[in-house]
This record gives sequence, C-alpha cells and structure tokens, in this order.
Amino acid sequence: MIPIVTIVGKSDSGKTTLIEKIVPELIRRGYRVTTVKHDLHGFEIDRQGKDSWRHKQAGAQGVIISSPQKIALIRDVDKDMSLEELRDAFGGNADLILAEGFKKDIQPKIEVFRKEEHQELLCTEEDNLVAIASNRPFDIGVPCLDIDDVKGIVDLIESKFLKGDRREEISLRINGKRIPLSPFVERFLIRTIKGMISSLKGGENPQKLEIKID
Amino acid sequence: MIPIVTIVGKSDSGKTTLIEKIVPELIRRGYRVTTVKHDLHGFEIDRQGKDSWRHKQAGAQGVIISSPQKIALIRDVDKDMSLEELRDAFGGNADLILAEGFKKDIQPKIEVFRKEEHQELLCTEEDNLVAIASNRPFDIGVPCLDIDDVKGIVDLIESKFLKGDRREEISLRINGKRIPLSPFVERFLIRTIKGMISSLKGGENPQKLEIKID
Repeated sequence: MIPIVTIVGKSDSGKTTLIEKIVPELIRRGYRVTTVKHDLHGFEIDRQGKDSWRHKQAGAQGVIISSPQKIALIRDVDKDMSLEELRDAFGGNADLILAEGFKKDIQPKIEVFRKEEHQELLCTEEDNLVAIASNRPFDIGVPCLDIDDVKGIVDLIESKFLKGDRREEISLRINGKRIPLSPFVERFLIRTIKGMISSLKGGENPQKLEIKID
Repeated sequence: MIPIVTIVGKSDSGKTTLIEKIVPELIRRGYRVTTVKHDLHGFEIDRQGKDSWRHKQAGAQGVIISSPQKIALIRDVDKDMSLEELRDAFGGNADLILAEGFKKDIQPKIEVFRKEEHQELLCTEEDNLVAIASNRPFDIGVPCLDIDDVKGIVDLIESKFLKGDRREEISLRINGKRIPLSPFVERFLIRTIKGMISSLKGGENPQKLEIKID
C-alpha cells in the first residue's frame, strides 16, 4: 500500500508552504508524490460553459477530462472520504500520499507550528503525531524539526515511510466495502493469488497486482 | 465491467448537447453515469493560487481535493489514455461510462449528425458505430434515430449496454499493465477467487470484487 503522511496545523501555520518545499525535495530523491487537500467547505473547480461542466450540470455523477498530458476527474460523493479510501481509489502509482489537513484521520501526522501565529499545538501524540516542524522547540516525545529544515523533514519522511522493507499488503473490497483481514488470511490470500497468477505470461514477478471482478 | 459508449461527430454536430439530454434521461431511469470528455489540446482546471494549485505547481504528480460532497483529482499522464483504461482507473461505481469524442477508440459509438453542419458522416461501421442520431435519414446498416428522440436513443443504449445478463468479467493488472486472459483462465480465476473470498465475513455475495496487492 502507498504510505500516507499528512501535514496538519492550525490556520495560517504554513501547511501549504511546507508542502511546497517538501514536494520538490521528494521528487529530487526520485519519489512520485500525490497530494491531497482537505476542503470541508466544498469547492468549485470546473469552468462554467465548458463541455465537461455541461456534462456535470446535466447530472453526471462523475466527469473525467482526458488529455495526453493530464487527466482530471470530478465526482460526487456522499460522505467525507478517509485518506485510506482516497489512497485506495486515486493513489495510482504514487510512492507517497502527502496530505494537508485531515486532523481527525488516523494517518500519521506532521504538525506545522509558528510561534508568531499560535500559542499551542493542535495535536497530541494521541493524534498519531510523528513529528513537529516548528520555529520554537517542543519536548513532547516526538521529533521537533526546524520549520525551514526541509532536508531534515524529508529525511524523516523517507526513513519512516519510504525506506526499508515494506511488508506486502493486500486490500480487499467487496461490493465497494473494505473487508478487514487477519494477518493469516492476508498471507493466505496474497500467496494463493500470487501463486495462481505466476503461471500467466507477465505474472512471473508481480510487484503490484490489481484484480477486479464484476 | 462498466459498459462504455461514446458520442462522436464532426465539430459543431451537437455532441455535448446530446449528452446533456441523454444523461438526465438515464438518471431518471435509475442509472449512475460518469461522462468522459476527450481534450486533445490539454486543459487548465485548477485555479491559480489555490492550495491544490500550489501543490501541483510544487511538482506533485497528482493532486486530490476532497470535500464531503465532491472530490476532484488532477493527475499528470504520459500518454492519451484509452476509454478502457479510464474506466478501469476512474469508473468508480458508475453503471455507464458515456464519453464524448474518442473516435479512434475501439469502444461502441453513436454518431451525431446535423445536415445543416455537414455533408457526410464521420464514422463507418468499421469504427464500431452502433447508431446514428441525425436530422436526416441514413441507411448504412445501423439504426438511425431522430436527433431529438432522446427516449429512443436512451432505449437503444439501455437495451444494448445496460439490460440483460452481463457476463461476469475479471480484469487483472500486474505492475500496472493489463494482462490478457483466455476465457478459461478468466473463469478459473473468477471462481477460485470468489470461492476463497466466500468464507470471509462480508464475502458471501460478492457482486463486485477489488483486490490490490503490493
């Protein structure tokens, strides 16, 4: 599964600015990054009068715009999706999902803090806080890095989420709903499915497998 | 697999206008529709200065904007994707993919024709043309419906693509690449995987199965 880390912080703490610095450094190191912006207030994105906008106005649940350089998808949803759900649906071939916001999500978080803007942190360790990027020190049991130390912050992300032997993982959705699996069942399914696939042309060395049945 | 049909026609023949009429009728009949617009010239969609725009400018390969009502995804691609690839990646839980353009794609097509605009059809039967929606009759071996007969056009789409017993299908991607399967292997994989899954809680009646291993 693609690892997820989310940058949180109170308003005006500099979340987007930090992401703008982190992404180029990750790319320089050879990673493909998909970012996620949480927008609780809804947003407008397509332009009035464009063909895709007319499709959506006509009632399409989803609209895809496809060009040789870029694709865009706009889709109605009926609830706020978790980062895990967004990763599974739209992660594509990214090496890392880097989100902004999603304080209530269970995924690991880095909090941005600037002393000029706020007095106290937004998160506690209970929020799955893995580090702080701040212009003043904090001693709360997680690494506190300088807000301008982009290399150090990316080192931490890399060592914690991108390096080392990631355990093979399987996700199973039945009728759209994710099914929780015990470690035994995970291993059983991974090995059985990989075993079956290995006899197919092209299936000798499956790093990444996707199967859809309907 | 979600069925695909694409509306083609020369420029100004009325493709978007026809889609604007077809979509509400499909929805009235209870179908969820995702549309696809082919844009060979590239497009701009996100707004300068927005956080998601800043993420993309920083070099993110993909950007997701997530709200409780709507999600949007913008992703760089390195080639023009086929309708099948778009369906597999972004079809979600739609009942039908209704595209506009994609004349060169192998998917079934309905051509829109208006005699005021053009002299000749764009497609031949070789283009997998299944019907014509026109304001003049054509006799070329496929049904020719009146361009304003929305009910008739949707009847044709419904009977040809949405009704009847669809055969169970499986798609298998290994390391991102679709693996062609013989009917025997398809049946073998579907039955074996469904058999394994059926012993899991929630796996008793799998209409739709998605498995990802990485």
